[in-house]
Amino acid sequence: MNETLTLLHAHRSIRKFTDQALADGQLERIIGAGQCAATSSFLQGATIIRVSKPESRQKLATYAGNQPYVANAAEFLVFCADLRRAGNCCEQYEKPFSGDYTEHFIIATVDAALLAQNIVVAAESEGLGICYIGGLRNNPREVSDLLQLPQGVYPVFGLCLGYPDQNPEVKPRLPLEVILKQETYNDEGDAALIESYDEKIREYYRTRTGGGHGICWSEQVASLLSEKARPHMRGFLAEQGFHFK
Amino acid sequence: MNETLTLLHAHRSIRKFTDQALADGQLERIIGAGQCAATSSFLQGATIIRVSKPESRQKLATYAGNQPYVANAAEFLVFCADLRRAGNCCEQYEKPFSGDYTEHFIIATVDAALLAQNIVVAAESEGLGICYIGGLRNNPREVSDLLQLPQGVYPVFGLCLGYPDQNPEVKPRLPLEVILKQETYNDEGDAALIESYDEKIREYYRTRTGGGHGICWSEQVASLLSEKARPHMRGFLAEQGFHFK
Repeated sequence: MNETLTLLHAHRSIRKFTDQALADGQLERIIGAGQCAATSSFLQGATIIRVSKPESRQKLATYAGNQPYVANAAEFLVFCADLRRAGNCCEQYEKPFSGDYTEHFIIATVDAALLAQNIVVAAESEGLGICYIGGLRNNPREVSDLLQLPQGVYPVFGLCLGYPDQNPEVKPRLPLEVILKQETYNDEGDAALIESYDEKIREYYRTRTGGGHGICWSEQVASLLSEKARPHMRGFLAEQGFHFK
Repeated sequence: MNETLTLLHAHRSIRKFTDQALADGQLERIIGAGQCAATSSFLQGATIIRVSKPESRQKLATYAGNQPYVANAAEFLVFCADLRRAGNCCEQYEKPFSGDYTEHFIIATVDAALLAQNIVVAAESEGLGICYIGGLRNNPREVSDLLQLPQGVYPVFGLCLGYPDQNPEVKPRLPLEVILKQETYNDEGDAALIESYDEKIREYYRTRTGGGHGICWSEQVASLLSEKARPHMRGFLAEQGFHFK
């Protein structure tokens, strides 16, 4: 396994960071490398807001459902799907702007995710730890107001960055055969594979929390998907100009 | 700059591949590393369909808008957002399945993108070239029928993988100041930065195509965003069980 593969295998979310700041220019170097990720139709439909002010960070930590590392991490970035920049281009060339299709939403959301993941790899290659913060979508209106996000822009997720002050175990992923199918989607043999994976995850939680909840993957996912999921998102996105036409 | 950053900076899409197949176990190694990417709420809401049969590859190439490299690349993967697996978990634990919120669509789409980008980094670290194929969304129904995608699953994009048989230049990205904002969204100074970037892109196309179209970034984006974008996507996604509640 080469160095990069070893790096990818070492990923785990970090939720406790040291006080060490990033070096001058380090964040720019990391984002510059991440920016080389592919982008759909060359749109580059993502914008990052770097939030440094302690009072803003504190607010974001609260909006995200009281996640203290949002306030404490050396850096906090908000990844936004951005069609406003494209809208400006339409204006410049006196063309109508049609950015309210479901397709546009997909393009810009995927662009934000590809950019973020490339930045994560860059950051981890320099010894930093990261944690994605989907919790920003708990209160997307408040987040957007704080960051003054205009029409055509929405916060997809946040990202904490900093030097790790903990060393959590890598969390096992689903067996490869479950997520990789040949020729067609066929999940016939998956139940047995997931059953033994569930046992592995129970063990992971037992070890990690020292005799903790021992819940398995399937049960977690069943809980997650049986509840209403941020039902405000649709209305919020419409306010921001995403209409899912 | 460390090795990983150098690797990220070297990314460009590859659309012409040699006949060389991947080594035994190489694809699995690459996907295994990519799978270590973060996943929202530990859902792991993405599934990859590896398509190898020549007749299927030819069909996908046509569906994607006649992109021959979809048929010719050593490997072709279709990245699907997948809530069916979560639905199975709900069934197992006799819980209702509520996977039709906009939020679920975001989670699964982002999961597919994070997984894909991590796989791309892994692949490029082994000397492979890649090209994302968003064009699969030109004919998502045909793609889904061919791959027998069940309810709760949709093809987000494809990915060609293989050994490069071309060496295109790296395509310049927007200036960092344009995509990275401090504290709030403020694009006041962007117009001037984008203007000089446009000049750079004109030059890139001139050089690359040997006196070719010389179109700039802003103009490309204005064209893209002034047209209807895959207006069938919304209806197709509803058929697959994504209702944007």
